[in-house]
Amino acid sequence: MPDALSGVAPRVERHFETVLAGFGANRVAQAMRYALRGGKRVRALLVIAGARLHGVAEARAIWPACAIEAMHAYSLVHDDLPSMDDDALRRGQPTLHVKWDEATAILAGDALQSLAFELAAHPQGADTAAARAELALSLARAAGGQGMVLGQALDIAAETAAAPLTLEDIEALQAGKTGALIEWAAMAGPRMAGAETGPLSAYASALGLAFQIQDDIIDLTGDAAAAGKAVGKDAAAGKATFVSLMGLDAARRRAVELVTEAEDALSCYGEAAEHLRALARFVISRQS
Amino acid sequence: MPDALSGVAPRVERHFETVLAGFGANRVAQAMRYALRGGKRVRALLVIAGARLHGVAEARAIWPACAIEAMHAYSLVHDDLPSMDDDALRRGQPTLHVKWDEATAILAGDALQSLAFELAAHPQGADTAAARAELALSLARAAGGQGMVLGQALDIAAETAAAPLTLEDIEALQAGKTGALIEWAAMAGPRMAGAETGPLSAYASALGLAFQIQDDIIDLTGDAAAAGKAVGKDAAAGKATFVSLMGLDAARRRAVELVTEAEDALSCYGEAAEHLRALARFVISRQS
Repeated sequence: MPDALSGVAPRVERHFETVLAGFGANRVAQAMRYALRGGKRVRALLVIAGARLHGVAEARAIWPACAIEAMHAYSLVHDDLPSMDDDALRRGQPTLHVKWDEATAILAGDALQSLAFELAAHPQGADTAAARAELALSLARAAGGQGMVLGQALDIAAETAAAPLTLEDIEALQAGKTGALIEWAAMAGPRMAGAETGPLSAYASALGLAFQIQDDIIDLTGDAAAAGKAVGKDAAAGKATFVSLMGLDAARRRAVELVTEAEDALSCYGEAAEHLRALARFVISRQS
Repeated sequence: MPDALSGVAPRVERHFETVLAGFGANRVAQAMRYALRGGKRVRALLVIAGARLHGVAEARAIWPACAIEAMHAYSLVHDDLPSMDDDALRRGQPTLHVKWDEATAILAGDALQSLAFELAAHPQGADTAAARAELALSLARAAGGQGMVLGQALDIAAETAAAPLTLEDIEALQAGKTGALIEWAAMAGPRMAGAETGPLSAYASALGLAFQIQDDIIDLTGDAAAAGKAVGKDAAAGKATFVSLMGLDAARRRAVELVTEAEDALSCYGEAAEHLRALARFVISRQS
């Protein structure tokens, strides 16, 4: 992780503590806190880095940074459910429906999605109402039936599809499943500043794909202890991935190319975007 | 239903058709359309009536009206799931997880929640960014872990609670489960106009409780064909309801009192609020 961004993760934890203080100690609130713990915080880092690039104070950027982490957390909780990916382990700990039960996991996920919008539209976040309304609107589109949920639906459909997925299919699937939230995160900074989002959108589009290719590589080559979740599941399930379609070496080369693309998209920012370039390199160096 | 509002339901249907046209024909999009069909549209009626009272054009008010119906639809889809209320019938038709499967029902519900925020923050809705940001923020609070989801969590907790619920417990539970969205709906009109929300908030608070008491009455006295869903479930499950705690006659009297309270809260609007008063009376006359 780039040094300039190393303080972000603990600030995200503290912000969630503050925000959730009013949610009480009921079962769902406890499950929400559990779902929000830890993680790499790549999406929050993108928000903070993009905001810094556009002169937006971190005290404001922490709100959309936590918004996108809440959205990501909800998606993991629901993806892990028995009727979805049926995973028992996440970040090295029992998944929500294992630790509590399915009803609690569904409700906590639902409440985390609501929380994401509460944080994105929060008056202490973006300082203009126009930016707050735009953050909420774009987050809804990124998360919904034409964004992340569509990606997840395509993923589930692939399991019973007659023909195996092509590389194009997988790119479309991942653009929704992983790409949409990563792009929203990178674009939040310029959106807060009322600035052009084009360069950070191009950056995030390449980065999101590199991120997913690296995930596929970790699934094949990683070990469960380092990854904090089950690995080798895709291969065991005969699921088409970037690695199974391209081969391991070509997938690694493609991820490196994409990171170069992502770095190049930042040329208009010059040296000021160095922490975003470092973040892109971090994404393909990580082993979990 | 008040005559002045009888055209609203078909306009809601048409608006959803238009909005969902871009969502394609995948399984989740089909399930979303199915979940959004029919219903009494009480929440949409409240938005439209409150907007009319504040001089907001219906072409704009239809956006938050559909937002709250999408939110309500998502909550029904998830409430019906096997790990929650496990209902097979809703509005006289198979529930989503019966017609499709659990994964599709979870995803369609998730996407409907996102859609609610997309519609609430839509630029063709409220004409100021301040109102759009406020609609999104207040909707998130009404729907989340301190609003509707909290109500649902309390409801589930009640099933295994050591002591039976008191009337106070049930009022708190229903304030979240049903009340929060009904209040948001009634307050959307003044919010769009940048006007005071107090009177419509008081109106909706009384109305929401009357609505839920009437639901309990229908569950005890209605028949499944008219209600379009299973009835008598609460009694069979030995669940505490307004009716079981107060008795049927007292519950009916309380609903009538609450409707009078709701009507009185509108006194500052005079005759102009007659359609909202009629809507309140409709709520306790309905049999489904």
